[in-house]
Amino acid sequence: MTRKQLIQQIQLKRSYLCVGLDTDINKIPAYLQTHPDAVFEFNKQIIDATQDLCVAYKINTAFYEAMGKKGWEAMEKTVDYIPKEQFIIADAKRGDIGNTSSQYAKAFFETLHFDAITVAPYMGEDSVKPFLAFEHKWAIVLGLTSNTGSTDFEQLKLVSGDGNQDSEFLYEAVLKKVSSWGNTNNLMFVIGATKASDLGEIRKIIPGHFLLVPGVGFQGGSLKEVSKYGLNNDCGLFGKC
Amino acid sequence: MTRKQLIQQIQLKRSYLCVGLDTDINKIPAYLQTHPDAVFEFNKQIIDATQDLCVAYKINTAFYEAMGKKGWEAMEKTVDYIPKEQFIIADAKRGDIGNTSSQYAKAFFETLHFDAITVAPYMGEDSVKPFLAFEHKWAIVLGLTSNTGSTDFEQLKLVSGDGNQDSEFLYEAVLKKVSSWGNTNNLMFVIGATKASDLGEIRKIIPGHFLLVPGVGFQGGSLKEVSKYGLNNDCGLFGKC
Repeated sequence: MTRKQLIQQIQLKRSYLCVGLDTDINKIPAYLQTHPDAVFEFNKQIIDATQDLCVAYKINTAFYEAMGKKGWEAMEKTVDYIPKEQFIIADAKRGDIGNTSSQYAKAFFETLHFDAITVAPYMGEDSVKPFLAFEHKWAIVLGLTSNTGSTDFEQLKLVSGDGNQDSEFLYEAVLKKVSSWGNTNNLMFVIGATKASDLGEIRKIIPGHFLLVPGVGFQGGSLKEVSKYGLNNDCGLFGKC
Repeated sequence: MTRKQLIQQIQLKRSYLCVGLDTDINKIPAYLQTHPDAVFEFNKQIIDATQDLCVAYKINTAFYEAMGKKGWEAMEKTVDYIPKEQFIIADAKRGDIGNTSSQYAKAFFETLHFDAITVAPYMGEDSVKPFLAFEHKWAIVLGLTSNTGSTDFEQLKLVSGDGNQDSEFLYEAVLKKVSSWGNTNNLMFVIGATKASDLGEIRKIIPGHFLLVPGVGFQGGSLKEVSKYGLNNDCGLFGKC
């Protein structure tokens, strides 16, 4: 999906909601658990009930992998069931040396028909770039995540290039460097909603990129705060929606 | 597999070789490519030919995922075919918020029967710890990788806790912090062989942990150098093997 198509959907739906399909077989309604295709059936009902309210679905691959090849099959069926105008994200947190990242990109962009995949940045440029090489496909790279562990490394402070102390956090260096490898048409970032007050500063670094913002609601993030500080610079899209 | 069992295998085989099964369907011999179960058949032949020479197999999950559910099935069959005395690694570079990492751990430790999984550290403690909660299973966390992109973030210098400049690299902070979350019985690290000269310094931080050392050979790492600087402090294991 192109940026333009995504923007059109946001304007049409007056929504920038992404629905998560982190489907845990042990947590779906009892009457579905004995269904031979329980996970897909559950997802189907969620999709039917939400598709007019959202512009994206995010499939958390871990929950499907935990079920082995049956889970992988449920994931394939789910992706194929989601209406084509929806933006479909593989929340897979992949990233490896170049030829391996290329295989992951193939897995999620070609074998499965996702529009985007979440990518971990630790291994650097050659681990991220293969995901940017597919037309109308997107890498969504981890910036500042919403979990408590984000303080362990993401929020460590770096020494600046000239050797002096600098106030830059690792996640800021990630945003700056990774954004130079792609553009606003093939690259987004994960920024947790629990750090909404930081979104203003983050927007100074990456004004135009779409952000995937987990953590609203249960994890404590405020939709109002996120919308105040986090919208991108193409204000027409969001400001009036 | 326990540390003791792994050590016994190393002593018995006089080897600490790990064989990679990064099986690309397009690169296996032509006569096998038309086989209905080509990837598994290829792996079977590799395993048959190498099992007396190595102590571990490493399956690169990307190459299997690129084939969809058929690839996932080939991975399952391959894991089940590998002799039980071998240490079996899912080279999967996973890592996500706690409940998602738990699902990944379940996928590779319970649904599949891997002994270990490679883990990306970017998201911090709650993304790594779920992999350490399974008895006789291992997390192999990325420290300093062998690819060119390792200079982008892994080798950035950090400001020390007291605000002064410090010579610590991000990957050193990762080794220190992550090693405090587990122990030498459930945690290993990935350290690229292309940085063999750094291995001595790395061993000062983590003297006892096993290291998974990619990059020997094609990527330029020297087995002799790696063995000189990289063996752990349980010298009897390696020094005389």
